[in-house]
Amino acid sequence: MDKLSKCEANYVPLSPLTFLKRAAAVYGNRTSIIYEGTRFNWLQTYDRCRRLASSLRSLNMPKHGVVSVLAPNIPAMYEMHFAVPMAEAVLNTINVRLDAKNVASILRHSEAKVFFVDCQYVQLAREALKLYFVEDTDAAGPRVILIDDIDSPTGIRFGEFEYEQFVQMGDPRFLPEEIHDEWDPITLNYTSGTTSAPKGVVYSHRGAYLSTLSLILGWEMGSAPVYLWSLPMFHCNGWTFTWGVAARAYDMYRNISQHRVTHMCCAPIVFNILLQAKPEERKEIASPVQILTGGAPPPASLLEEIELLGFHVTHAYGLTEATGPALVCEWQSSWNQLPKPDQAKLKARQGISILTLADVDVKNLDTMSSVPRDGKTMGEIVLRGSSIMKGYLKNEEATSQSFKNGWFRTGDVGVIHPDGYLEIKDRSKDVIISGGENISSVELENVLFRHPRVLEAAVVAMPHPQWGESPCAFISVKTNSAGKTDDVNEADILSYCRENLSRFMVPKKVVILPELPKTATGKIQKFQLRALAKNFAVSKDHNAQSRAQILAMSRL
Amino acid sequence: MDKLSKCEANYVPLSPLTFLKRAAAVYGNRTSIIYEGTRFNWLQTYDRCRRLASSLRSLNMPKHGVVSVLAPNIPAMYEMHFAVPMAEAVLNTINVRLDAKNVASILRHSEAKVFFVDCQYVQLAREALKLYFVEDTDAAGPRVILIDDIDSPTGIRFGEFEYEQFVQMGDPRFLPEEIHDEWDPITLNYTSGTTSAPKGVVYSHRGAYLSTLSLILGWEMGSAPVYLWSLPMFHCNGWTFTWGVAARAYDMYRNISQHRVTHMCCAPIVFNILLQAKPEERKEIASPVQILTGGAPPPASLLEEIELLGFHVTHAYGLTEATGPALVCEWQSSWNQLPKPDQAKLKARQGISILTLADVDVKNLDTMSSVPRDGKTMGEIVLRGSSIMKGYLKNEEATSQSFKNGWFRTGDVGVIHPDGYLEIKDRSKDVIISGGENISSVELENVLFRHPRVLEAAVVAMPHPQWGESPCAFISVKTNSAGKTDDVNEADILSYCRENLSRFMVPKKVVILPELPKTATGKIQKFQLRALAKNFAVSKDHNAQSRAQILAMSRL
Repeated sequence: MDKLSKCEANYVPLSPLTFLKRAAAVYGNRTSIIYEGTRFNWLQTYDRCRRLASSLRSLNMPKHGVVSVLAPNIPAMYEMHFAVPMAEAVLNTINVRLDAKNVASILRHSEAKVFFVDCQYVQLAREALKLYFVEDTDAAGPRVILIDDIDSPTGIRFGEFEYEQFVQMGDPRFLPEEIHDEWDPITLNYTSGTTSAPKGVVYSHRGAYLSTLSLILGWEMGSAPVYLWSLPMFHCNGWTFTWGVAARAYDMYRNISQHRVTHMCCAPIVFNILLQAKPEERKEIASPVQILTGGAPPPASLLEEIELLGFHVTHAYGLTEATGPALVCEWQSSWNQLPKPDQAKLKARQGISILTLADVDVKNLDTMSSVPRDGKTMGEIVLRGSSIMKGYLKNEEATSQSFKNGWFRTGDVGVIHPDGYLEIKDRSKDVIISGGENISSVELENVLFRHPRVLEAAVVAMPHPQWGESPCAFISVKTNSAGKTDDVNEADILSYCRENLSRFMVPKKVVILPELPKTATGKIQKFQLRALAKNFAVSKDHNAQSRAQILAMSRL
Repeated sequence: MDKLSKCEANYVPLSPLTFLKRAAAVYGNRTSIIYEGTRFNWLQTYDRCRRLASSLRSLNMPKHGVVSVLAPNIPAMYEMHFAVPMAEAVLNTINVRLDAKNVASILRHSEAKVFFVDCQYVQLAREALKLYFVEDTDAAGPRVILIDDIDSPTGIRFGEFEYEQFVQMGDPRFLPEEIHDEWDPITLNYTSGTTSAPKGVVYSHRGAYLSTLSLILGWEMGSAPVYLWSLPMFHCNGWTFTWGVAARAYDMYRNISQHRVTHMCCAPIVFNILLQAKPEERKEIASPVQILTGGAPPPASLLEEIELLGFHVTHAYGLTEATGPALVCEWQSSWNQLPKPDQAKLKARQGISILTLADVDVKNLDTMSSVPRDGKTMGEIVLRGSSIMKGYLKNEEATSQSFKNGWFRTGDVGVIHPDGYLEIKDRSKDVIISGGENISSVELENVLFRHPRVLEAAVVAMPHPQWGESPCAFISVKTNSAGKTDDVNEADILSYCRENLSRFMVPKKVVILPELPKTATGKIQKFQLRALAKNFAVSKDHNAQSRAQILAMSRL
């Protein structure tokens, strides 16, 4: 039995590139991309990707050389997800909200050989390249290709080629080399760096393939979905949803209605945008739109409201290092009988492992033992499976720290409920330890979100002379019918907290800001809030609140 | 980038065993199995499989030793699909319709170490073991374990243990060894041998895993299906559907109604059983039942009728060597506008590749070039992908013949339509070559099936002095309202053929049999019909028809 050997017919390396080839063969005439007035079908997309891959090959890049892209959700961005690996290169999509310094450091760290720049981001790219060459004047630097808008060309030019010209130069008969090893790298995604310097997460063809299957399976996407790209593609191999480009309420409603969108992905924060749209911005949602959400634990109250609008939400949990979703809160039909608020609470849990993940657990990392399924005992969420990243590029220390005893450490603290569903209680570094009690900042934030006037909420640890740490809450407030926010104050929120929380969990301080500080990917920057909170703890100066507002605003 | 290495956290061998562990963790309390009055949930099934695996391990089998099973669709059969590989053994399910000689030769060829026998098949097993020892008196032989009926115990005993006792002996805390190589064998399935000696097809963990994902994806099974085991599990890693055990019309209707079945698999021949059920055997189909069908090209007329009953049919094509389905006739919504007969014709095509298959093509095997997408040019259907079998056990010649130039040869002749959908025209050996024209037996059979009185039809080549070969049709006939079949004769069918077929395709002979001869798996034995057809060609004796009936009946 052990004599039967692998051959090309029975052992084909797993790669998402096979999906495009298949789509061209069997859905050739179906629409692949709609971008304003521009439409492609799968045959055209396959043809364009092959041309682009052939042009990239003509640049004589080394195998697994990095191709960086600075672009929003445009057709070129989609095409590069296939064309770049077809050319045996590695795709690196860069967050367009980063500053020039960060973009330059990614170009250097990844040793990018080619740099695609959308016409909208020429200024940012120019500055980044300047910084790049300041640091290393001898460097060859990446070859630069400008992407003009395919639907409304601007005429802007930058670098050696224009994208469309570069595509047309290519050979439509180009046949990509077969992937010989499914462990080969396919993409490189930098983490947003909420806590430390950005790390370059490398995915394999195998991981990307399996993760794709899980996602379409777990979400029951069917064979003919209409997908709205509300999640920026520079996170499309990743997970960190944000409100990004397509998140103007009017554009979203217009696209949903015009193209009969069936599926979209977004962060819970996008729910606010959809809910707060003005009447003239709205269109009726004729048939239910499936939303996959994640990136931050969605407040149950928000889930309840968005479903009333005609969206059907599936809540998932993942991270860049897990090639996207790792857990999904799969709905149990028996929950349909429960009152709506209870349903929303159940849906706010992170859920169960996706099908292609080999295992998930919540462990005490000191003993590596699993926590009991009691919904209370906290531990760190750990994962195993072939869709976990290969590792961090040129960062052995971070790579070895994140893999412990055969598990990947998520850095998230959670519990397992008796029904096997996981719930995140916090990032491990965000847990507040007050007088020996662990306080989950997420739990506290959920209570704050249930207050009718709270728009955003984040709770961090504040040093406390007696308890070691105590919770400090930062919120922003919804406008009232008169368009004002100044009718809510700290005392109102504190008294609401006292009514709804155990005494030891009540924040010692509530700070109201016009908007909470966020990273380029839309994550609240708790490290900034922690820095602010220290001021309150030390100075006990009530004027600090106004200073805090100014500090925070300067980051927005 | 190439320094990033595999570890236990990011490279987990693919194996369907992970599905059971996950089901126990996340669907623990959901029903796993219903068998008459016996019910298990996933926690219990996982527990029972671990016990069984632990008991098997205590028998000190060699790694990858074969465990053979002779049983119908009972809970034990399902449990062994997980427990046997958990014990690092290889599962071999034997078709219960084989005779003792064939069973003995499978036990010998596979070198089975353990032999599970259902109480219903003790006599067959006893005879097979006798033959086994006659051939090799020194052989140790497999250890025998009897499976009594779990729902209504018979008290019958045979061999060393009884299954339930053997399960209970096991350790419920048994942790199976991790699979270290996904290329390891998981099951061994013998082909039915319509044309040659049965061959032992070996699957890998990887292949079984990927094939499972494709199937649930392609069929859109969702996360909570209710599946009726109408397909014998001794083909459950395989594909050859038959009417088997659950195919009594009354039992099928009763189970569908009682358990709200959502999904089932069966051969097109089962449609006849469902359609011809007497009124008292029927129950109303309250909500649509999804049927996955295959094993033989389904006549379009039959597809049309079964859908009217409330079944929704998906047509797939596969073979044992492809770990089941390889193509699926994915429905295009634009087809809903077409008249029903056109819809049925489209659905009768074999379709497009399943998602995890790397590639499918129709090729001229001499030149290895693809046929044009014209729906006319015939070639052999070839497949590539990780769900193709490892090879045939101890049969290097057959293995190397079936793999050609990096492709697996299906032995089926087909065409590609302009829309990319494949359609089988014949088994390569069943094509009739008449005066230099290729005649597809399947095409001819489809026309015969459209005759209102034809129940079964098979067309084979008959030697012809002038044309080399000519078509000879064998049919069986539906009863008329008086319960008779003798009001249809050869002349009626011939005149119908002349009206509906090109002249060169009209059969030179039509033979009416009470039932067509079939293999143990329900496939029509064309080699027998070919032998019969020779008599007609040579003797031109009209009395041959009655002799033929007797010959055929002796096999039923």
